[in-house]
Amino acid sequence: MTNRTLISHFPLCPLCRLVRLAFYEKGIPHAVWTEMPWQRRPEFLAKNPLGTLPIITETQTDEYVLSGATTICEYLDEIAPMPDLIGESPRGRAEVRRLVEWTLGVFYLDVVKPILEERVYKTLQHKGVPDSAVLRMARQNYKILMPYLDWVASRRAYLGGRHLSYADLAMAAQLSVLDYLGELTWDNLPGAKTWYAKIKSRKSFNSLLQDKIGGIMPSDNYTLFDF
Amino acid sequence: MTNRTLISHFPLCPLCRLVRLAFYEKGIPHAVWTEMPWQRRPEFLAKNPLGTLPIITETQTDEYVLSGATTICEYLDEIAPMPDLIGESPRGRAEVRRLVEWTLGVFYLDVVKPILEERVYKTLQHKGVPDSAVLRMARQNYKILMPYLDWVASRRAYLGGRHLSYADLAMAAQLSVLDYLGELTWDNLPGAKTWYAKIKSRKSFNSLLQDKIGGIMPSDNYTLFDF
Repeated sequence: MTNRTLISHFPLCPLCRLVRLAFYEKGIPHAVWTEMPWQRRPEFLAKNPLGTLPIITETQTDEYVLSGATTICEYLDEIAPMPDLIGESPRGRAEVRRLVEWTLGVFYLDVVKPILEERVYKTLQHKGVPDSAVLRMARQNYKILMPYLDWVASRRAYLGGRHLSYADLAMAAQLSVLDYLGELTWDNLPGAKTWYAKIKSRKSFNSLLQDKIGGIMPSDNYTLFDF
Repeated sequence: MTNRTLISHFPLCPLCRLVRLAFYEKGIPHAVWTEMPWQRRPEFLAKNPLGTLPIITETQTDEYVLSGATTICEYLDEIAPMPDLIGESPRGRAEVRRLVEWTLGVFYLDVVKPILEERVYKTLQHKGVPDSAVLRMARQNYKILMPYLDWVASRRAYLGGRHLSYADLAMAAQLSVLDYLGELTWDNLPGAKTWYAKIKSRKSFNSLLQDKIGGIMPSDNYTLFDF
């Protein structure tokens, strides 16, 4: 067996999806392992005592490599610079990083994470029914934040500028989870919708669209490119 | 007037403090402007429609440059690589970024942010008294997370390895805010305490220790190096 990188992930975790997309887009061979972080398996915690996903390890040596979506993306950019997914100039790279920071630090926390926790993690852990107040707040945040994505997407070929970058992968990973859960709406968001259709039809997205989680079925639109 | 960078900050925001420390450590001339983001001043929102701190602008042209603590730190590393604050090898840089990601994505969100919101932002906005349940949860998280810091700090000269890095600045910025609010305790955390005393006594920390917020006084230990 050749030594490959193993991505420990949970299929509907958008941070893990960002990392999987990054590996695909950079053409780096890898395998994936599904981890339920709430099970707190000793073998998993031995590699990452913080218990967070995603992490990457080496399949042959089982050696821990790295944890954290942004950290892994920056690392991939350093060990495999081409195709470039951050940008070339310091200002261009800063714009990509700014959008990624907003996506993971605001959009994920205020929209995707609460919806995931209520609708997926609670179900899988048999922890009761979704809290409708939390879902309402997250959906309200979606309506507040999406116009910013639409504004950026309407002005540029890709979110970070003229080329595909981590900014696109980070945001598309978030939307793909909402898409699975049937939480996407596109009223008055034509720029965002066109941009998402473009990213969704990329080859790297294929594996995400084949994800299935036991007990939680994807929405009808999930695998459609023309939604 | 020479063109300098202006950091728009709120004095007790640990993300802003990280950026201020980074400018000091790299010896980059700068000025600071105190912004109360909840006032949503049109001039501020015109530069950063997301309304988040920190942002940096040019004093002469008033041109918006960048927002987001991690993004600004990575940008500074690109335009002013020395002194190095990320590390030299891809794996070394990944370790620093991993620690920064944990500090901002976990420690800040689960400990510092809720304490700041309840004890500072609510007061300054006349929004009532702190929610004791939120404070209790944040202080409980402090007790859960600090042993990890202690574990790392006990094994290395600096958090990221042998040299000062953004990992130290990011974490020390968090602790400095808790320090101001009298929320630091060091029971069974000797490694973390020694490490924090070392970072706190750096010249770059001086300006933070002079911060005062109207109506919210610093704790007795705040300016002590021997606490």
